[in-house]
Amino acid sequence: MIYLDNSATTKVYDEVAKQMVKIMTEDYGNPSSKHAKGLEAEGHIKTAKADLAKLLKVDEKEILFTSGGTESDNLALIGCAEANKRAGNHIVVSAIEHPAVAEVADYLEAQGYRITRLPVDANGIVDMQALSEALCEETILVSVMYVNNEIGSVQPIEAISAMIKEKAPKALLHVDAVQAFGKYKIYPKRMGIDLMSVSGHKIHGPKGVGFLFINSKVKIKPIMFGGGQQNGLRSGTDNVPGIAGIALAAKMIYDDFEKKREKLYALKKRLIEGVADIPDICVNGTTGEESAPHIVNISFIGVRSEVLLNTFAANGICVSAGSACSTHKQSVSSTLKAMGADAKRMDSAIRFSFSEWTTEEEIDKCLEVLHKELPMLRRFVRK
Amino acid sequence: MIYLDNSATTKVYDEVAKQMVKIMTEDYGNPSSKHAKGLEAEGHIKTAKADLAKLLKVDEKEILFTSGGTESDNLALIGCAEANKRAGNHIVVSAIEHPAVAEVADYLEAQGYRITRLPVDANGIVDMQALSEALCEETILVSVMYVNNEIGSVQPIEAISAMIKEKAPKALLHVDAVQAFGKYKIYPKRMGIDLMSVSGHKIHGPKGVGFLFINSKVKIKPIMFGGGQQNGLRSGTDNVPGIAGIALAAKMIYDDFEKKREKLYALKKRLIEGVADIPDICVNGTTGEESAPHIVNISFIGVRSEVLLNTFAANGICVSAGSACSTHKQSVSSTLKAMGADAKRMDSAIRFSFSEWTTEEEIDKCLEVLHKELPMLRRFVRK
Repeated sequence: MIYLDNSATTKVYDEVAKQMVKIMTEDYGNPSSKHAKGLEAEGHIKTAKADLAKLLKVDEKEILFTSGGTESDNLALIGCAEANKRAGNHIVVSAIEHPAVAEVADYLEAQGYRITRLPVDANGIVDMQALSEALCEETILVSVMYVNNEIGSVQPIEAISAMIKEKAPKALLHVDAVQAFGKYKIYPKRMGIDLMSVSGHKIHGPKGVGFLFINSKVKIKPIMFGGGQQNGLRSGTDNVPGIAGIALAAKMIYDDFEKKREKLYALKKRLIEGVADIPDICVNGTTGEESAPHIVNISFIGVRSEVLLNTFAANGICVSAGSACSTHKQSVSSTLKAMGADAKRMDSAIRFSFSEWTTEEEIDKCLEVLHKELPMLRRFVRK
Repeated sequence: MIYLDNSATTKVYDEVAKQMVKIMTEDYGNPSSKHAKGLEAEGHIKTAKADLAKLLKVDEKEILFTSGGTESDNLALIGCAEANKRAGNHIVVSAIEHPAVAEVADYLEAQGYRITRLPVDANGIVDMQALSEALCEETILVSVMYVNNEIGSVQPIEAISAMIKEKAPKALLHVDAVQAFGKYKIYPKRMGIDLMSVSGHKIHGPKGVGFLFINSKVKIKPIMFGGGQQNGLRSGTDNVPGIAGIALAAKMIYDDFEKKREKLYALKKRLIEGVADIPDICVNGTTGEESAPHIVNISFIGVRSEVLLNTFAANGICVSAGSACSTHKQSVSSTLKAMGADAKRMDSAIRFSFSEWTTEEEIDKCLEVLHKELPMLRRFVRK
């Protein structure tokens, strides 16, 4: 089995799973309890916060644990919109956000907020001119992802932050870093990021846990209510094994960071160079080190994505068409559409996404399948 | 270490932890992906749903996975309120709900809904006369917990359901069964329950996962938005190991069910009989088999809860004062207050809560500590 769908989800590090088992079966207390078992559990949360805060160079109090990237994004957008609505009702998002941001923006629009959706260029990079024109007195929040989940384009976060400071200094900047964390060294405070979403299962950590960095100056309201955990901002018994798991995974993914990144870029180059002799393909987005190291998105014109997915599957290779989430909506890729891709490119796009365990041999096997099967598949396509 | 705080959280079954490790490190796919790894993951979710549906005698489609009891309660209340607001704006809750219901009711009140909080009697049982008077044309939702988390009182759910059907047939009945599931055989459809919240970590399953039973006739809206997982009602990558974990724990806790329950009642009786000779105590709520098998709440008049907690802790015994959640709010027990307890009873309440692993020896050790330490502690109390 060759797993090239690491942008959908990743294998959990053995060390992380082991640590979680220890917590589930030994240090299983409720961190809100004041006895020994509770303190043990609270200790794991403190350690996790300290580790993540150190990685991001932020304060421990600025890390809030959630049930994943989706909740982090929902809390960032809805929580900030609600808390800051006296300051304005205008929110800016990019046109290529993950549904966990895009759908929340739609929801907020239905609640009466004014939403601007920033166009992107042919490479999936946000139009800075459009941002400049959108920002105004009424703008309370801008949400732009760091790395796009479908094509791996990287947004100019620092330039966006600088422009916000100039044109709409009251506005907050939220960054969905679900695909970027672990692939980039991100220091939110230096980059001018006010809120940042991270998910556990994209970095070899557990599913069902994520965190939101929230700069201490940010005004935000909870979206879930209850026991008042995490200073009242996220009620519900803390998911101690998950929290310890995401923190350990974060530490581990940044071990040997430069080496891992170089390896990912080499794999990316190998795949892109390997398909260069195949006619009628289109690599979507930029392909060099200005793009994310772990994502390659290619349209194989004339062959529908599902057909090629099945061919890969028959050869033991797991890849996806766009993002995993989109399987629920049968819709075309919103990212490729925003980039101005035509129907042929959208209908035939395949996303390959790597992890630190992906090998050159796996890329070569993938190329072999493509070279062997694609001409046959194309022969059967109706013209 | 003697752990008598199982209402706060429980040790995870070894088999559950083992199953979760397998999924995290082998069957780690995203169930939304259409390749082999995705199908593997989807299979685990289907099995979990089928197992839970069978236990509850409901349809698989009526099980929705969440991040825990708090999210289940929030979704039930907010989601139903939003979806049914054209039908009315009146919601009824009991005065002794967990904060995950009580705080949501406060939130909905601030949003313009009218909330009735039903009083309880001296034993913590909902006043049916008050319910009868509260129900009206405008009532869209009634939320009453099955087992109270602080004192273990059991609410007359079937009588409540019957009264709703008679007086406000449009209204839905939500039951927070977080403390009841695993201790009672619950068949929501037979009992007239429309929505029911369950949490993983109270039944020797993982933290960070729960489910909400939602009768297929119920109109409900999502409270989180994104990739559209779970038929659009709960976006976010499914927490596959957590979901498999809660389902396996549910199956396991109902193995040998009658035997386990008898054992728990015997432990409860042993503790209550064992304190009978201690002067100036008050067992809060009823104590026989009309109350939950795993919770005993006793006020040791004259000794503040924290003092007694510390004494137990020094003897290696984990118990709590009221609920774990309340440690965040420094408030008195809302349940005891609603029962009409005076300050002395509220300030000195200790909750003992058992699991299937609790032994008679542990209860005896607990009684020994009480008999030895309590007279000394009381000697130091200022009159």
